[in-house]
Amino acid sequence: MPTNHRLLLAARPNGIPGPENFTTDAQPARSPADGEVLLQTLYLSVDPAMHSWMSVGNGYNQRITIGDVMQGGGIARVLESRAEGYLPGDLVQARLNWQTHPTIPARYLQKLDLTLGTAEDWIGPLGLSAVTAYFGLKDIGGLKPNDHVLVSAAAGGVGQIAVQIARFEGCRVAGIAGGAEKCAWVANELKAHAVIDYKAESDLSAAIGRACPGGIDVYFDNVGGPTLDAALEHLRHGARVVLCGRISQTHATEPYGIKNLGKLAASRGRMQGFLVFNYHQRYEEARTWLAARRRDGSLHQRLHVLQGLAQAPIGLGMLFRGENTGKLVVRLAS
Amino acid sequence: MPTNHRLLLAARPNGIPGPENFTTDAQPARSPADGEVLLQTLYLSVDPAMHSWMSVGNGYNQRITIGDVMQGGGIARVLESRAEGYLPGDLVQARLNWQTHPTIPARYLQKLDLTLGTAEDWIGPLGLSAVTAYFGLKDIGGLKPNDHVLVSAAAGGVGQIAVQIARFEGCRVAGIAGGAEKCAWVANELKAHAVIDYKAESDLSAAIGRACPGGIDVYFDNVGGPTLDAALEHLRHGARVVLCGRISQTHATEPYGIKNLGKLAASRGRMQGFLVFNYHQRYEEARTWLAARRRDGSLHQRLHVLQGLAQAPIGLGMLFRGENTGKLVVRLAS
Repeated sequence: MPTNHRLLLAARPNGIPGPENFTTDAQPARSPADGEVLLQTLYLSVDPAMHSWMSVGNGYNQRITIGDVMQGGGIARVLESRAEGYLPGDLVQARLNWQTHPTIPARYLQKLDLTLGTAEDWIGPLGLSAVTAYFGLKDIGGLKPNDHVLVSAAAGGVGQIAVQIARFEGCRVAGIAGGAEKCAWVANELKAHAVIDYKAESDLSAAIGRACPGGIDVYFDNVGGPTLDAALEHLRHGARVVLCGRISQTHATEPYGIKNLGKLAASRGRMQGFLVFNYHQRYEEARTWLAARRRDGSLHQRLHVLQGLAQAPIGLGMLFRGENTGKLVVRLAS
Repeated sequence: MPTNHRLLLAARPNGIPGPENFTTDAQPARSPADGEVLLQTLYLSVDPAMHSWMSVGNGYNQRITIGDVMQGGGIARVLESRAEGYLPGDLVQARLNWQTHPTIPARYLQKLDLTLGTAEDWIGPLGLSAVTAYFGLKDIGGLKPNDHVLVSAAAGGVGQIAVQIARFEGCRVAGIAGGAEKCAWVANELKAHAVIDYKAESDLSAAIGRACPGGIDVYFDNVGGPTLDAALEHLRHGARVVLCGRISQTHATEPYGIKNLGKLAASRGRMQGFLVFNYHQRYEEARTWLAARRRDGSLHQRLHVLQGLAQAPIGLGMLFRGENTGKLVVRLAS
């Protein structure tokens, strides 16, 4: 049997998480029982929600016990199968957790449909970040052609797909990102109509006003805090605010107080949170839509790829410091 | 011709408005032109939104020019008509403004359907405050039987109707009001399942937790600020927050910062503002529903009646100090 290397949660984060929150272990992979498969992890996705999963009182169900393997989704190859419908070599997607050789009941797996895209597509533009952008904008955001859309963390895993979906749907899109390099990429590659470098702006609200003349119909929020507050000042009548993430608040010592909810009320607008897992039965709709735009070359995706399981905790820290350029993944094998 | 006494906006409010913001004048009422009617005002409604109308940069269209008659809705009797379908003695509802004898084009009037209720019903449980509660709870709040509902300003014009609608619809209702007298009335007359006296609680969130065990499905918010923030801590999965009013913030020197939006996101909840005028074409639906419950004696309404036009500015101040007990109206004639 191959050796299963794992990363276990050793300590809950106090601030931005990193290698100090994890310990490693290694043991022979477990032989699959009836209905199970033994997998080799190819990619792990590193996502902002993981901080919540590691924390106490997070509002999620997935809280991880100290000493347990760190949770997370990814792409894997079947090495050995005792489950009908799965053969060695098959590529699957699952909550693999942070380990090189998980053994998992087949009912928790989804086989990759390689007619839709490659394994890299499935961790990227067909993955859950992309599906999140799709339902967040279309369902929660009620996206309509000609809407004026603002996306924060526009260079991130969800944001980059949201910018492009809005553009494909005939909207005017402005993106917020941190730093000249990310902003140039959002403008040139994602073709946002306007870009705001929040690190270069002393008055974010004024910058949003310049980038979104006439105001905002849909604000796709990945960051929360002062950026959300500034965006609220520019809502048009009937605006929709999609609460997708709040990475700015994950490590705030004190939560930021939103002062502009009166603008939401005055705009007769709506603000809504959501969980992509609630759309489980419609994932195929999103993936078919995204795959068509991937195939014709119009949908771009930038992966930020780290090499090796040991990089996963480092990636988590990069994510919360905004150091990643594109959707952050860890490659364990190819 | 009768004398038309008017109250004109003399100064925009700097804090809670009162008589100092108005001047009076008196002149002969204007004879109706073709298509107009001359009215005698019976009741004027005094509403929180009026502060916005008096202010600059209020997000409404109805801003009042200094020197103009104060705007507001009410109930009147036709004295003289040059409009088809209106006869002396007819009772109507309109934006009468703060004057005893307005002359108004008939197209701006709605004739009271006295089969639905009396003139007092039309300023009260069939009036716009009640219709606001109806659409706010049912449409924006998506009220369902067995929902756990929390209503702030539960003794106020909109709140008292909201409490009762929720109860009629098979929900569990808790109300927040200020002072023992109001709270007793909300419990005994409106039959809320639980009542919170916010003036007697040092920890409002804990009090909400006790009054709403298991959390909140629908929060009908008439006050904003710290009360909204405390309610957000108790949202159940898929909760709806109806932003109807924010009277706590009207005179805040600095807007209160809402810290618990993360709870809205975590609950996958929705928060939405609305304007009752957008439901114009469905007013009859609401009034028919309310009238049926008025007729069978189940729908209660407490009017706080002030006497005479000069009391209207005083009433405005009472409203913002929470001194009214029930929906605040001014009676000019009977």
